[in-house]
Amino acid sequence: MQIAIRREPIEGERRVAATPATVATYVREGYQVVVQRDAGAASGYPDAAYFDAGATLVDAVDLTAVDVLAHVRPLEPATIAALKPGAVTVGFAAPAGELDAVAELADRGVTAFSLELVPRISRAQSMDALTSQALIAGYRCVLEAATRFPRFLPLYMTAAGTIPPASVLVLGAGVAGLQAIATAKRLGAKVSAYDVRSASADEVRSMGGTFIHLDLDEDADAAGGYAKELAADRAARQRELLTPHVQAADIIITTAAIPGRPAPRLITADMLTGMTPGSVIVDLAAESGGNVEGSVAGVDTAVAVDGGVITLVGMKDPASTMAFDASRLLAQNIAQLIGLMTVAGALTPDFDDEVVAGACLTHDGAVRHEPTAQAVAERNGAR
Amino acid sequence: MQIAIRREPIEGERRVAATPATVATYVREGYQVVVQRDAGAASGYPDAAYFDAGATLVDAVDLTAVDVLAHVRPLEPATIAALKPGAVTVGFAAPAGELDAVAELADRGVTAFSLELVPRISRAQSMDALTSQALIAGYRCVLEAATRFPRFLPLYMTAAGTIPPASVLVLGAGVAGLQAIATAKRLGAKVSAYDVRSASADEVRSMGGTFIHLDLDEDADAAGGYAKELAADRAARQRELLTPHVQAADIIITTAAIPGRPAPRLITADMLTGMTPGSVIVDLAAESGGNVEGSVAGVDTAVAVDGGVITLVGMKDPASTMAFDASRLLAQNIAQLIGLMTVAGALTPDFDDEVVAGACLTHDGAVRHEPTAQAVAERNGAR
Repeated sequence: MQIAIRREPIEGERRVAATPATVATYVREGYQVVVQRDAGAASGYPDAAYFDAGATLVDAVDLTAVDVLAHVRPLEPATIAALKPGAVTVGFAAPAGELDAVAELADRGVTAFSLELVPRISRAQSMDALTSQALIAGYRCVLEAATRFPRFLPLYMTAAGTIPPASVLVLGAGVAGLQAIATAKRLGAKVSAYDVRSASADEVRSMGGTFIHLDLDEDADAAGGYAKELAADRAARQRELLTPHVQAADIIITTAAIPGRPAPRLITADMLTGMTPGSVIVDLAAESGGNVEGSVAGVDTAVAVDGGVITLVGMKDPASTMAFDASRLLAQNIAQLIGLMTVAGALTPDFDDEVVAGACLTHDGAVRHEPTAQAVAERNGAR
Repeated sequence: MQIAIRREPIEGERRVAATPATVATYVREGYQVVVQRDAGAASGYPDAAYFDAGATLVDAVDLTAVDVLAHVRPLEPATIAALKPGAVTVGFAAPAGELDAVAELADRGVTAFSLELVPRISRAQSMDALTSQALIAGYRCVLEAATRFPRFLPLYMTAAGTIPPASVLVLGAGVAGLQAIATAKRLGAKVSAYDVRSASADEVRSMGGTFIHLDLDEDADAAGGYAKELAADRAARQRELLTPHVQAADIIITTAAIPGRPAPRLITADMLTGMTPGSVIVDLAAESGGNVEGSVAGVDTAVAVDGGVITLVGMKDPASTMAFDASRLLAQNIAQLIGLMTVAGALTPDFDDEVVAGACLTHDGAVRHEPTAQAVAERNGAR
């Protein structure tokens, strides 16, 4: 069976779906591996290393011959249309957003596995690409904040006086938020964090952060460790209670996301006005609507406050800024999922396995993921 | 007596020679303090804070009325010519480079104190601006490296496999180098360091770094904790012995400087070829000739290596990137030096004090710093 890896076609995407190490795994498992030339160039994996691992290098992947296509970004409908019926795809599929592609995958009879749908159970941790990529994002956003901050993060006691540590506030304590806490602590900052899920308090503390309790009399833990959306009046009360914490912070990292929904608005423009000039906010959710009013993905915005300006950073695609390690983890996640489904050198999904069934987006002409199937049906009905 | 602080006239210089805190000190000591409007704007100190501290804000400082001029960058000859004879200046004067300005200071009868000349003795630590600004540079260059490095610095043990820590090599273990070691360690990297001064081995270890001993059979400790220049054959041998360490490093920070001389060339282009693609070199000495062949101050250069490219970063003015804290320390250094010379609200230098005498560049029409006096005399002779 042939596994193919293409150079990611989307501009700016630097990751690759397989590294030489995972190619070697596929070869050992009995697959024939085809890699497009320069597929790993932007992430630091040269063609020669893929060749040495046992891959066949090609100028362009012949999609009609592919049995398994490993990919990073959601596939374009045109790419899907070129696959043979029964082909298998494994990668990010953005099931909530890319409904055209999902419909095409089903129509084409492709068996698509979506990394976003891998169940958050311990047996599937090694396949959890949302987690592995969020690790990168959490680390990265602290570096982005630190380089824009006109002060030290650590405490310094010098002959010319003592410099106090920076105060970092992290909003949203999922994987990215916890990693941001850990990285800011490494750099010596004083870190506090808030999450609408009260269950995260212990995790925040274990990373060295101080957990902020807000008197919201509602908890928002949803299944799978994700957060659910707050009612409008609760969200307003949340913002009101957060305001003094926002204004006391030198650096704010926002990481709040709700699966399949726009990012919650945690910070409004009004809340920024009391911040100290020079402060920096990094909005990790800028690409999905933004936790902070006014943030634009990929753009630094100067916001006027009393006595100066603060910098609002809309993070864009943090994983691609560290493409080597991001690809290393992502490729491993994909290889683990493919390995789980491999029997005697052939990809043979066992739909009785909850990981396989959970990760499956389309199979045999149907959309298998129920919420996505409904969204596709609604979209078709609306046409 | 009037102390004046101007907005630094040099493009890109974001620091300021006094903060509201040091203005308050001057006022307490009995000085009248004049601050040019927006002097602290770029470093995050608003006019209102200077006013509250007791300063008089002016649109332009009347240089003819100034008794003491505190400054960051070396003064322009035109500025010096406007000062009254007997005026005192305190700031960086670059005595080895700015000979025109030095001659003008002497000709004009200005009493100039150069922060570069403050003796490195423990009593003068609080006035040591080279040290305080090097602290900034050492911290900063690690952040610059980390944001350009396509991998994590720390070790990560994840469900998708273990990511090894980055290997950081620091060349030159003065204040900046030690701070770079400390910051890279904070971020979880494996750090080794080399300095031609064998005395620095213990300091490197105390920061958590591994000291690299090269078999050079010559030591290069000079007075004041600085390094002296190596003979050409020793320098070549040093490069040869450093090569395997350079090629094993993921990130290299070079900080080697020799007072009054061009920076030593520690790394040649040849030595880079064996480095791993994605590696990053930050040359802190780029503005004084560069420790690394090909580095250009303020520019990132991609250097081709086997299988990809590495990034060579020529650091430029790192202190201005963190102007708030850089100014805080620098202003304190200046205030300590002025405080040492203040008697009953007037600046009254006691030239029997070794700190005052050591820091004095010009006084009473003469260049007091012997090496600079010689350089000025040679320059005049050559005309």
